[in-house]
Amino acid sequence: MPIIKAVIEYDGTDFYGFQRQPSRVTIQGELERALTNLFKQDIVKVIGAGRTDAGVHATGQVISFQSPERFPTDRIPPAMNGLLPKTIRIKSAEEAPGKFHARYSAKSRTYEYVILNRETPSAILGRYAWHVAKPLDLGLMQAASEGMAGKHDFASFGMPDKPGGSTIREIFDFRIRTKKDSVCVTIRADGFLRGMVRTMVGTLVEIGRGKREVAEMAEILKACDRRAAGVSAPPQGLFLTKVEC
Amino acid sequence: MPIIKAVIEYDGTDFYGFQRQPSRVTIQGELERALTNLFKQDIVKVIGAGRTDAGVHATGQVISFQSPERFPTDRIPPAMNGLLPKTIRIKSAEEAPGKFHARYSAKSRTYEYVILNRETPSAILGRYAWHVAKPLDLGLMQAASEGMAGKHDFASFGMPDKPGGSTIREIFDFRIRTKKDSVCVTIRADGFLRGMVRTMVGTLVEIGRGKREVAEMAEILKACDRRAAGVSAPPQGLFLTKVEC
Repeated sequence: MPIIKAVIEYDGTDFYGFQRQPSRVTIQGELERALTNLFKQDIVKVIGAGRTDAGVHATGQVISFQSPERFPTDRIPPAMNGLLPKTIRIKSAEEAPGKFHARYSAKSRTYEYVILNRETPSAILGRYAWHVAKPLDLGLMQAASEGMAGKHDFASFGMPDKPGGSTIREIFDFRIRTKKDSVCVTIRADGFLRGMVRTMVGTLVEIGRGKREVAEMAEILKACDRRAAGVSAPPQGLFLTKVEC
Repeated sequence: MPIIKAVIEYDGTDFYGFQRQPSRVTIQGELERALTNLFKQDIVKVIGAGRTDAGVHATGQVISFQSPERFPTDRIPPAMNGLLPKTIRIKSAEEAPGKFHARYSAKSRTYEYVILNRETPSAILGRYAWHVAKPLDLGLMQAASEGMAGKHDFASFGMPDKPGGSTIREIFDFRIRTKKDSVCVTIRADGFLRGMVRTMVGTLVEIGRGKREVAEMAEILKACDRRAAGVSAPPQGLFLTKVEC
């Protein structure tokens, strides 16, 4: 039976993250429940390219699962969307090569972090951005981010999924730009440690506010010690926007 | 005592529109309740530049009120934001000339309507866009909108606030553009009839889907008859983005 690859979107606000957890509402849990209903099976297991934390959103998460029967792929999104909560949507589905695995086949993941940088919090974006009232110096943040691209040990910024796992990752692209009254940080890498984007953004915000020096970012990276970095940015500003397979 | 002009933002989802209504939660009602608390008065009346309908949002609504006492204007936003629901925020406040009146002093209002034009509804934008699954032809919509700018009788597209009131308005600017998978309609005018933007957008979508001819837009305008126009677009895609005073 075929392996299905699907691109999904979700509003992470009301979920305990991607990963299945007993007696908690998670993205993986809801997807598996809907698939089990759709195919009338005991269990259909879902694999996600990125295990997003509680409150983190996705506009381009990729999942894979083994379909228990032949089902026209173009009918999977509407059928699944009828069974899922409105805050999880299947955007597209296709048959993938037999060895496809959303997690292991992913060559890169792109995360975007949105900081609303203005005095007043937003009446509208509260669920989708981190409100930082004090002005941020974009130039300082960009300068501090310069050494981050490339292959490094990112142990200062996050934890591996399994204790003792590798903390080496390769960042392909690290961009910080302004968009009206927001600052957006976009990072594309082969993979991310747990909490890595949020700790990098939290540290960059401390630099942008002048509470840390630009040079500290490189020193933190070199330290390979989680205690060296700054605070973690809150989850609601983070979006998994793209997965390349 | 001074007249205060303030710029406000709100998520209209959970409100019965701008205008005060007995026993219903409205933007004006919440603002007046907060001001009455702040100044410990029996009543402080608020005037809005645009009377947005239930479910319609604002990022740049302008209000005015007579302050019952001298109060530092830079302290009004934080003080009011502490008393308002999180889905209404005061962005700025300043003293205005004695004759300032948010409604009568406004020279133009700008509304933006967001249509999410893709097959799958959004998990994230559901509260802030109209989902149109069938493809829209932007060229047809732009061509149909061409005769709309200028001073016209817009009776086909909306109702005056008071029965028998003038239905003549002047549109200064009418733009339709795409932004990723959205189509945004932006209209700047000296004023709008009730339902005018939503009826124009609803009619343009019928044209963009090929259900009506491009030429019908001008014929509808000429007809001066509300029954000539198409359906009204739903409220959640509409934002009052700017008021020029």
